[in-house]
Amino acid sequence: MPESSKFLLADSQIPTAWVNVLPSLPEPLDPPLNPQTRAPLTPQDLLPLFPMELIQQEFSPQPLIDIPGEVMDVYRLWRATPLYRARRLEKALDTPAHIYYKYEGTSPAGSHKPNTAVAQAWYNKRTGIRRLATETGAGQWGSALSLACQLFGLECTVYMVRISYDQKPYRRMMMHAWGAEVFPSPSDRTNSGRAVLAATPDSLGSLGIAISEAVEDAATHSDTNYSLGSVLNHVMLHQTVIGQEAKLQMQQAGEDPDVVIGCFGGGSNFGGIALPYVLDRLAGHGPRLLAAEPTACPSLTRGKLAYDYGDTAKLTPLIKMYTLGHDFVPPGIHAGGLRYHGASPLLSHLLHLGHIEAQAYPQLRCFQAAVQFARHEAILPAPESSHAICAAVDEALAAREEGRPRVILFCLSGHGHFDLGSYESYLGGKLQDYEYTPREIEAAILAN
Amino acid sequence: MPESSKFLLADSQIPTAWVNVLPSLPEPLDPPLNPQTRAPLTPQDLLPLFPMELIQQEFSPQPLIDIPGEVMDVYRLWRATPLYRARRLEKALDTPAHIYYKYEGTSPAGSHKPNTAVAQAWYNKRTGIRRLATETGAGQWGSALSLACQLFGLECTVYMVRISYDQKPYRRMMMHAWGAEVFPSPSDRTNSGRAVLAATPDSLGSLGIAISEAVEDAATHSDTNYSLGSVLNHVMLHQTVIGQEAKLQMQQAGEDPDVVIGCFGGGSNFGGIALPYVLDRLAGHGPRLLAAEPTACPSLTRGKLAYDYGDTAKLTPLIKMYTLGHDFVPPGIHAGGLRYHGASPLLSHLLHLGHIEAQAYPQLRCFQAAVQFARHEAILPAPESSHAICAAVDEALAAREEGRPRVILFCLSGHGHFDLGSYESYLGGKLQDYEYTPREIEAAILAN
Repeated sequence: MPESSKFLLADSQIPTAWVNVLPSLPEPLDPPLNPQTRAPLTPQDLLPLFPMELIQQEFSPQPLIDIPGEVMDVYRLWRATPLYRARRLEKALDTPAHIYYKYEGTSPAGSHKPNTAVAQAWYNKRTGIRRLATETGAGQWGSALSLACQLFGLECTVYMVRISYDQKPYRRMMMHAWGAEVFPSPSDRTNSGRAVLAATPDSLGSLGIAISEAVEDAATHSDTNYSLGSVLNHVMLHQTVIGQEAKLQMQQAGEDPDVVIGCFGGGSNFGGIALPYVLDRLAGHGPRLLAAEPTACPSLTRGKLAYDYGDTAKLTPLIKMYTLGHDFVPPGIHAGGLRYHGASPLLSHLLHLGHIEAQAYPQLRCFQAAVQFARHEAILPAPESSHAICAAVDEALAAREEGRPRVILFCLSGHGHFDLGSYESYLGGKLQDYEYTPREIEAAILAN
Repeated sequence: MPESSKFLLADSQIPTAWVNVLPSLPEPLDPPLNPQTRAPLTPQDLLPLFPMELIQQEFSPQPLIDIPGEVMDVYRLWRATPLYRARRLEKALDTPAHIYYKYEGTSPAGSHKPNTAVAQAWYNKRTGIRRLATETGAGQWGSALSLACQLFGLECTVYMVRISYDQKPYRRMMMHAWGAEVFPSPSDRTNSGRAVLAATPDSLGSLGIAISEAVEDAATHSDTNYSLGSVLNHVMLHQTVIGQEAKLQMQQAGEDPDVVIGCFGGGSNFGGIALPYVLDRLAGHGPRLLAAEPTACPSLTRGKLAYDYGDTAKLTPLIKMYTLGHDFVPPGIHAGGLRYHGASPLLSHLLHLGHIEAQAYPQLRCFQAAVQFARHEAILPAPESSHAICAAVDEALAAREEGRPRVILFCLSGHGHFDLGSYESYLGGKLQDYEYTPREIEAAILAN
């Protein structure tokens, strides 16, 4: 039998607490601000949208937060997720590097998103909430929350960006199968949606508009809360199960990563794999932590660290983050989950402090890496995940160049079963790259 | 922590041999016949289509056949597959039954089909074959073989039933992503295809026609072999990894199944889970073994045990099996993988001898069961797999009726990520059932 290429954990090894890096930060985060008063946000300001336990997690000083038993019960349906060594890909790249990947596509919804969806649904259910409202772009988050709500007996309303609603019917149907109601956004169900439709009847929608609709829906119905799949601290917190498991599995493999990579949209996948390693960095001995974002939406590499809104209609608090401006509408690249103008404030802060690094990758090279990966490692990656693969391939080729080994760990955030149209476009030579001039980036940010 | 609901195996527990029931049969199988001479088929007759090692497996007297190391290396990418206890579904059904399911949807192609595709590609590769030709209906088999060929450096040509080619573009794109060429069948690349097109230019195709095309392609190109995803003994053999793992996992769970269930089209999924248990039955102490087929294509429950062709153009050997006639074209139900007029000769024989049983289920009840399953157990099943779920639900309700426990084990053959259009049709009330009168079945069989 050859050396093992797959590292599994027993159910008893699934983490039973989430890792919270907030109390370990060398400098505290700047607080979110009330959008009307610009005063630091109080927990009460958030109560129309979130249950108190999630709000407390958002600001928690506890280094570890226990995972509730019923959330663990659901995690065990697919967790621990496998860690693989990509031996076939290493061979194809002729590299001395060792490439490991943590695969989150084994969840029923096909990505890492249920890690937080399940937790959020549970905390809301026990507060007595009847329904959750949320937005979704490509549909990964919407389907994860639909599933989580179904399992805990909550209703779920999803505002799906119009162009995705039309172009990705399978994701919408998956949400229906799990019992959610799905509306194309902009919709006529909210003031925010109606305002956009009045101005632009044939609007294709955007994540910023859909967030405005979901927030408004939650704020105007007392039995309904809002749920977000990225950006916020409590979302990053729930995703740390990924990195905690990966650490145990890398121990099994007998190696320490030199670099840890995740794709970056709002930050939930990168945060999930990287945050447990951040604690090592803060203690002076961690690996490099590399966020892989698209050149078409380069908030970390070309955005500005500033207070900005999370949505188009300016309904959300102001948060300090790397942003391209809340009016920025990225082009229709196929990694729909990475098309967000902002970034997690926690990860923005860590980037600013130099504990993580970021790199932008164009989608053609990402698809090339994804096809190479699928043909050697069998799994068909989501376009979002392809950014992490592209970064890992670059690292492996750099190791070859240097003639020195390098241990690379990346998170494969999900499968691409609902993205095959994108692969077909890529293989048919119909995709293009997007790169901004400095002037375009400047204009986007100044417009806000 | 609650009692465990998931049972995993270490890599070291993956079976290293396939289980062959042929030498244990109380009466031998009737041999396949040469379609021209009607004399029993010789191994040489099959050499234009298959490598000698697979032909030997087709008739092997060995009770165990070692799995080659390179096949094991690929199996380990996703095997062992998990076994779950469906506690949430049990609770929803308010049944004293314990329901277990073996989930094969974790393979990169999303079903059990790679278990044999990988083996077939490997044996062909080492015989010096350059290309494999095959047919596919719904696309599960075609994508599994595309992946297997890619991993071993073979070319792959897939004849995809025209209506699926048009209606299920994602399965076709998946095959492209793994490097296969895919043609709608009937095509103009073969005599069989051209003959159909001449008579019916807008033919929607059928599995029988697509098999004819793939067989002709292989028979007329010396560097090309044919590959089949079901029916044949060597396919059943390779799938026995499923049942062997399930037995180990049921031991972990500390229970013996009273009934083992699989969906039935050609027999590869049912055979995979059931054949290792057949040996127990033959030794006098096995569980009930229940094949779940669609009422729209009821070969086991309403077909005739007779020699028939495996394809429409009568290019295949004559095999003795339960058949609805090689001209039988089932209606367009959504479990495309179960639309086959015939059945595995081995499983037909075991049914005839009374060691297995069969039951037909209408698609509306199957979709109802699938949605119930998805909403409690989180996994979205393939329409084929929904037949096994429907049978398991019936067994669980019978146990409730009796007020007695029953241990039910079924195989969940794959996920339904490419079948969401079917779910949407079901949820929208747009599906119907198909049931044949005795006269219609009689007419179908007599027509051959």
